[in-house]
Amino acid sequence: MQLFYDPDLKSGIHALRDEEARHAFQVLRKRVGDVLDLVDGRGGWFSAEVKAISKRECLLDVTELRREVSRAGHRTTLLVAPTKNIDRFEWILEKATEIGVDRIQPILTHHSERKRIRLDRLNRILESAMKQSLRAWLPELGELLPLQQALEETHLNDLRLLAYLGEKETPLLRNNYQRGDNVSIAVGPEGGFSPEEAALAQSLDYGFVSLGPNRLRTETAAIAAVHTIEQLNW
Amino acid sequence: MQLFYDPDLKSGIHALRDEEARHAFQVLRKRVGDVLDLVDGRGGWFSAEVKAISKRECLLDVTELRREVSRAGHRTTLLVAPTKNIDRFEWILEKATEIGVDRIQPILTHHSERKRIRLDRLNRILESAMKQSLRAWLPELGELLPLQQALEETHLNDLRLLAYLGEKETPLLRNNYQRGDNVSIAVGPEGGFSPEEAALAQSLDYGFVSLGPNRLRTETAAIAAVHTIEQLNW
Repeated sequence: MQLFYDPDLKSGIHALRDEEARHAFQVLRKRVGDVLDLVDGRGGWFSAEVKAISKRECLLDVTELRREVSRAGHRTTLLVAPTKNIDRFEWILEKATEIGVDRIQPILTHHSERKRIRLDRLNRILESAMKQSLRAWLPELGELLPLQQALEETHLNDLRLLAYLGEKETPLLRNNYQRGDNVSIAVGPEGGFSPEEAALAQSLDYGFVSLGPNRLRTETAAIAAVHTIEQLNW
Repeated sequence: MQLFYDPDLKSGIHALRDEEARHAFQVLRKRVGDVLDLVDGRGGWFSAEVKAISKRECLLDVTELRREVSRAGHRTTLLVAPTKNIDRFEWILEKATEIGVDRIQPILTHHSERKRIRLDRLNRILESAMKQSLRAWLPELGELLPLQQALEETHLNDLRLLAYLGEKETPLLRNNYQRGDNVSIAVGPEGGFSPEEAALAQSLDYGFVSLGPNRLRTETAAIAAVHTIEQLNW
């Protein structure tokens, strides 16, 4: 099954967005009369018959099939410091989408190795991962924010967790999370969060959690965190 | 902390293997008198003072510090079909090593997209991941084997699990694994295992397990499996 994504889908005649039209008609050679499966990134599933193809636009006759109320019974926000190697950060976005995440909030921290990201390219990766996973929910991607601002903007009813080894023994994430909890989990850069950042997070009600006894790269830690949370919800 | 790897370490004067010597002395500019931290990939930790550097060889005065009995209280073997895109397969090796695995057995299956792998390059990736994780255990890497042979060569006392959705409801991996179990877990290529391969595995006492409700790429499934098993051992 091949999915196409268009955020503006609605029943009736609709011109498929340019990016998907190029893929559908020039690469995959879809023709008038073909039926496409589409999602709108907000839980909506659609079927559409190709009515007309031209250089200017490609028209579909769209039918809404169903709309999921939510991705899951909980919401996960992953705050994560972009890695120096951009492939590794793209890998986080792809894997987090496959496993299950609602929002990715890139953060700028004391030890950050990357201070700029290209949202358009990263959104393309999220869209591809959503389609490849045969899902109808596109994770939100925030702009790169300084850690303090990102922490302050945390949803009020989220469980707040920081991947950080404190002075006392730090509990495992999986022992600090309950099925159904909405959660914001923050993962630092390769050098970790600084003690000042950890104290700031604590002052904003973030608790420290461990992702296990091993030393993990940022991208591995991010995916381990997302995977742990999803698993506890199955 | 920077680790160096040499499988032939022993106390006394030792010539560091060429691959590590290049990195230590030409790239990192280690000098006579410097102290290096080394592991032998079998649980051994060593400290060594650099005694002499020449084009021909680099001599260390090595002291064995300690030797771990085992990586963990259980053994994990990951059987996995190499992905078409070799980067993704290399990710599996790197991430599995970070999270914790004892042996990676590449398999050739009905839907395999990659029928050749370069063991030397893949072993370099395992070595780098071990050093980056500050660990002393180098995962074993088997040659690419046809699925049947790999399944037949499974350790007799391993719990045997195949990531495959059978006709009846398939139990989650995490409900089919107990802390301390030695396990062989097999993950198929993008097209999955064929029904014939699943039947063959069953005849060799492999049970079917699910890695969750989502559709995961091969590399994501492999890491999810390894992560699930390690988590249950913490």
